[in-house]
Amino acid sequence: MSDYQPPLRDIRFNLEELVDLDGVCQATANADCDAEIVNAILEEAGRLCAEEIAPLNQSSDQAGSTFADRAVTQAPGLDKAYQHYIDGGWGSLSEDVEYGGQGLPKLLSTTLQEMVQSANLSFSLCPMLSQGSIEAISLHASEELKQAYLPKMISGEWTGTMNLTEPQAGSDLAAIRSKAEPDGDGYRIFGQKIFITWGDHQMTENIVHLVLARLPDAPPGVKGISLFVVPKFLVNEDGSLGERNDVYPASIEHKMGIHASPTCVMAFGDDIGAKGYLVGEANNGLVYMFSMMNNARLGVGMQGVAVSERSYQHAVSFAKERVQGMTVSGPGGIVKHPDVRRMLMTMRAATEAGRSMLYTSMAAVDLAHSATDADVKAKASRRVALLTPVSKGWATEMSLEVTSLGVQVHGGMGFIEETGAAQYQRDARILPIYEGTTGIQAADLIGRKFLRDNGRGMNELLADIDADIAAAKSVEGIEDVVAVVEQAVTRYKSLLTTIQSNGEDAVWVGSVATSFMMLSGYVWGGWLMLKSAAASAPKQQDEPFYRNKVVTARVFCQQLLPRAEALLQSIECGAGAIMDIPEDEL
Amino acid sequence: MSDYQPPLRDIRFNLEELVDLDGVCQATANADCDAEIVNAILEEAGRLCAEEIAPLNQSSDQAGSTFADRAVTQAPGLDKAYQHYIDGGWGSLSEDVEYGGQGLPKLLSTTLQEMVQSANLSFSLCPMLSQGSIEAISLHASEELKQAYLPKMISGEWTGTMNLTEPQAGSDLAAIRSKAEPDGDGYRIFGQKIFITWGDHQMTENIVHLVLARLPDAPPGVKGISLFVVPKFLVNEDGSLGERNDVYPASIEHKMGIHASPTCVMAFGDDIGAKGYLVGEANNGLVYMFSMMNNARLGVGMQGVAVSERSYQHAVSFAKERVQGMTVSGPGGIVKHPDVRRMLMTMRAATEAGRSMLYTSMAAVDLAHSATDADVKAKASRRVALLTPVSKGWATEMSLEVTSLGVQVHGGMGFIEETGAAQYQRDARILPIYEGTTGIQAADLIGRKFLRDNGRGMNELLADIDADIAAAKSVEGIEDVVAVVEQAVTRYKSLLTTIQSNGEDAVWVGSVATSFMMLSGYVWGGWLMLKSAAASAPKQQDEPFYRNKVVTARVFCQQLLPRAEALLQSIECGAGAIMDIPEDEL
Repeated sequence: MSDYQPPLRDIRFNLEELVDLDGVCQATANADCDAEIVNAILEEAGRLCAEEIAPLNQSSDQAGSTFADRAVTQAPGLDKAYQHYIDGGWGSLSEDVEYGGQGLPKLLSTTLQEMVQSANLSFSLCPMLSQGSIEAISLHASEELKQAYLPKMISGEWTGTMNLTEPQAGSDLAAIRSKAEPDGDGYRIFGQKIFITWGDHQMTENIVHLVLARLPDAPPGVKGISLFVVPKFLVNEDGSLGERNDVYPASIEHKMGIHASPTCVMAFGDDIGAKGYLVGEANNGLVYMFSMMNNARLGVGMQGVAVSERSYQHAVSFAKERVQGMTVSGPGGIVKHPDVRRMLMTMRAATEAGRSMLYTSMAAVDLAHSATDADVKAKASRRVALLTPVSKGWATEMSLEVTSLGVQVHGGMGFIEETGAAQYQRDARILPIYEGTTGIQAADLIGRKFLRDNGRGMNELLADIDADIAAAKSVEGIEDVVAVVEQAVTRYKSLLTTIQSNGEDAVWVGSVATSFMMLSGYVWGGWLMLKSAAASAPKQQDEPFYRNKVVTARVFCQQLLPRAEALLQSIECGAGAIMDIPEDEL
Repeated sequence: MSDYQPPLRDIRFNLEELVDLDGVCQATANADCDAEIVNAILEEAGRLCAEEIAPLNQSSDQAGSTFADRAVTQAPGLDKAYQHYIDGGWGSLSEDVEYGGQGLPKLLSTTLQEMVQSANLSFSLCPMLSQGSIEAISLHASEELKQAYLPKMISGEWTGTMNLTEPQAGSDLAAIRSKAEPDGDGYRIFGQKIFITWGDHQMTENIVHLVLARLPDAPPGVKGISLFVVPKFLVNEDGSLGERNDVYPASIEHKMGIHASPTCVMAFGDDIGAKGYLVGEANNGLVYMFSMMNNARLGVGMQGVAVSERSYQHAVSFAKERVQGMTVSGPGGIVKHPDVRRMLMTMRAATEAGRSMLYTSMAAVDLAHSATDADVKAKASRRVALLTPVSKGWATEMSLEVTSLGVQVHGGMGFIEETGAAQYQRDARILPIYEGTTGIQAADLIGRKFLRDNGRGMNELLADIDADIAAAKSVEGIEDVVAVVEQAVTRYKSLLTTIQSNGEDAVWVGSVATSFMMLSGYVWGGWLMLKSAAASAPKQQDEPFYRNKVVTARVFCQQLLPRAEALLQSIECGAGAIMDIPEDEL
C-alpha cells in the first residue's frame, strides 16, 4: 500500500493559474478567500485526508458494512474519521453562513472534496450526499424546514440522503410509484427505494432522507412527483429528537466496489407510514431534484479524477520499487521500462486534464451562483450547463481506463486484492453509472446542451478556446501542443455542423451521443492542457513542476488526443449499422 | 442470470467458411474430422457447457476455494462437473493417440475450449493448465516420464500445473531462485512458487507440477533454469500412487476475479525436499516452457473471446427485458435505445473479430504442427508466431472493454454482484496479465516477430490480406467495408516502414509497442471481418445469420476500426514526451 499524497501543488496551480480563484472571488464579492485561507484549507484538509481517512481505505473495503435488525453499521473506524471531519468544520466550508456555514466559494470546498474522495471514495459519498440534500432544502424548502434541518446538516451532526430510484425506475424517474398521503402537518410516505447511498449508518444521531413520491391524484409521469423530507428520527419543536420514524433499511447490496459505502434498500412506511414534509410545491419534485443533481454530477466527475489520482500514485510507487529485468535505461524499477512509463504518463495526463476540467466547472458554478454582474452570471450558468455532462461523463469513463492501467502496471500483483490497486478499479466502476449513466450525460450534452441551446453555450466556449489557442501561439516551446490542439478544435467545429444538420434524426443523434461526449472530453481536455502548458512554459526554469506540466500536456496530445480523430470518424458514420440486426436476432 | 447459449452457428461459420477446417484436415492428413464428428463435438460439448458447467459459474465465484491443513478444496460442484468432463473424454480430443488421446485437430478442441471458458472461466483453467503440462512432457520428456504420466493426464485422471513465478520473478524469469539437488534417480526441489493456478484441489487423485528450478552450479540468468516434473503423489513403477511428495499449497490468493480458480502459493521442499524428475536436458527449461507457452497464450486469448461472448449474451438478455422510458422506436426494452444498441453491437463486433482471430491462429497451429508439406508447415509456423501476441494481447484487452460495456448496459444493476455482469469484468481483468502481460506480448510482436524477423512473416500475412481485399472487391454490397479496411491496411503498411527505420532505438520501440500491438489487432480484425463479410454477403437472402455477419463487420468498421487512425497518430509521435519527467518527480 502506498500512502496518499495530496496533490497540493497541482490543485494550487489549477486554482491560481488555470481558473483564477482571485478573479472568481472578486466577481462574487467574496472577501474571504485570500491566499492564507486557501493554503490553510489545502494543508489542513490534506493532512486529515492523508493521515486519518486514507489509511482506512483498504480496511473499510474489506470489512464492508453490516446489516442486522433493520439497521446498518458502517465499517470500523469510519465513525471516528467522520467525527474528525465534522469537528474540523469541513462539512460546512461552502454552506450558507445564515445556517452555520462558512460561505467560502465552491472552488475551495472542491479541493477538500477531491482529497476526501482520493482518500476513501466510499467515505466521501456520505458528505457528498449530505451536501446535495442541504442544497435541495436550501433552495426549495420552507423557512420552517430550513430552520429545523439545515443547521444540524451543515454542521454534519446529521447526514442526508437522496431517494430517487425504485426497482422499476432507474434512469426513468417517470416510473416512480412511492406514495405520499396527507397526514396532519405533513404526509405519510409509503414505498420502497433502492440504491440509497449511506441510507443508514450509526455515525450520526439522525439522517435526513429526501424522497421522491406521488401525492394522491398527482398527474402521471414526471409531472406528478413531489419531494419530501423524511427524517430517521422526528424532530421536536425545540430541536430535540423525537420518535423513530417508519423508515428503515431493508437490506444492503453486495457490490463490485465501494464496499464501505452502504447501498441500501429503504422501506418507507412498512408499519404506519413514514412521516414526511413536502419540499416546495407539490408535483415539482423532479425539478428540485435536478437542480441539485447537476452539482452531484460534478461531484461524481471529481470522484473520477480523485480515484484516478490515487490509482496513479499507487502505480508510480509500485513501479519505482518493483525490479524486473534490465531496462532499456539500465538497472532499476520497472518505471524505467518505456511501456510502463507510457501507462503511468497516460494515467497522469488523463488525471490532470480531468482535474482541470472539474475545477473549471466549479469556478463556473461559483460565478453562476454568486457573480454580481448579471451577464457574467448568465454566461457562467450556460457554461456550467455545457461542461457538466462532459465533466461527469468523460472524467468517469477515463477513470475506468486509468484505474485499469493502474492494475496493469502491477502485473499479477495488481489482481491480488491485498495490493490495493484492484480496489480503485472496482470502486471506479460505479462512477459512469450513478448520478446519470454515461448514456444519460451524452444525451444531455448533445440534446439539451447543444442542439436545443442552438449552440449558444458551445459557441461561447469555442470563442474562449480560440482565444486561448491564439494566446498560446506566442508562448515559446509549446508549438507542438498548440498545433495538435488547434487541429483537433478545427475538426471538432466542422463536426458540430454535421450534428446540427442531423439534429432531427433521433436515432442518428442517439447513436453518436456517447462518442460526441467522449470527443468533447478529449478536445476540451486538450484545450485545458494547452492552457496549462501556456501558463507553465515561461516558468519551466523556475520550478520542475512547471516543466512537468508542459510534459504532461505534450503526453496528452500524443497519447490521448489522437483518439479525437477516431471518434470523429465514428460519428461521421452516424447511426450506421448499429440498429440493423433485428432485436430477436441479437 | 441469463443462460449460456453456445454460439454454435458462429463457431461453425469460423471453422467451415473462414479457416477451412476441411483444408486443414487434408493438409494434415487427418481423416477423422468430417462434418459428422464436428457437429457431434459442437452439440455435445455445447450441451455439457450450457447445462452442467455454466450453471456453476456464479455459485462457484461466490463460494471460492478454501484452504486449510495444507490443502485446497475447490468450490462446491466443480468436482462433479470435472468428472463429467473427463468421463466424456473431453480432455483428450487433440492429444496424442499413442498415450490415449483422440488425435483430432486443435481447431476442434478449440471449440470445446471456447465453450468451457464461456461457461466458467475459473473451471476452464484447470484443463487448460493440464494441456500445457501434457504438451511440455510430450515434447521434451523422456519416454519413461511420458509412459508414467501422460496416459493419466490425457485421460484427465490427473491434472497438471505450471510453476514459473516466484515473488521476485514475475515477467523476469531470469530471477528464479528455486533449487534442485540431485537425489538418487531424480532431484529434490526446494523453493516457493506463486500464482500457481489450480496448484491444489480435491478433484483428482494426483496433480503433476511442472517446475522451473536451478541445478547446483547452473549458470546465472535464463540459461541456468531447468524443468522438472514434481507429482503431488509419487508414482510407483506399476503406475499406482506412492507416498505424498513434499509439495504443498502454502496459501491461496484473495483475487479480484476468477474466485473459483485456486491461485496457490506452492511450497516445494519445506520438509525433506520435493522429489522431482528432470524434463529433457539440464539448463534448457526456459526453452521448453516457452514452447508450450505459445499455446497457452492462444488459450488465454480465447478466454478473452469466451468471456466477451458470455458478457454479450448476458447484456443482450437484460437489455431486451429491461424497460426504461419510451425509446426512439416506441415502447420496449432498452435494447431499442440507440446508445444501448451501440454498446451491444460494439461488444458483438469485438467478440466476433476476436473469435475469428483465434480460430485463424489455431488453424495455423494445426498446420504448423502437422502439415505434410514442409513449406506449408514452415509458413504456418511463422504465421502462428506472428498472430500469437496479437491474438493474446488484443483479444484480452478487448475483453476488458467488452465486459465493462456489459456492466454499463445494466446500469446500476450491473454493479450489484447478484446480477452476474460484474463477475465477467472481474474475471476478465486477469487476462491481459497472465501468460505474459500485454506489454510482454507487444514487445514480442514488435521485436521478435516483426523487426528481428525482418518483416518476413508480416509480409506473408499482408499478401494474404491484400488477396482477400482484392477478392472482396468483387462481392456486391460490402463496398463500404472494403473501402475502410483497405484504407486502414494502406496506412498500416506505411507505418511498418516507420517502425523499421526506428528499430534500433530501444526507447522508441518500447514506447510504441503496445499501441502497435493494438493497432495490429484492429487492422487484422478488420481484415477478418472483411473476409467474413465477403463469405456471407452472397448468402444474405438464405439465412439471417449471414446478413447479421455483414452487419457486424460493418459495425466493426464504423465503431472500432477508426481507432486504428488514433493509434497510428500516437505511434508516429514515437517515444514523444513519455520519458521526460524524471523518475523521482512522477
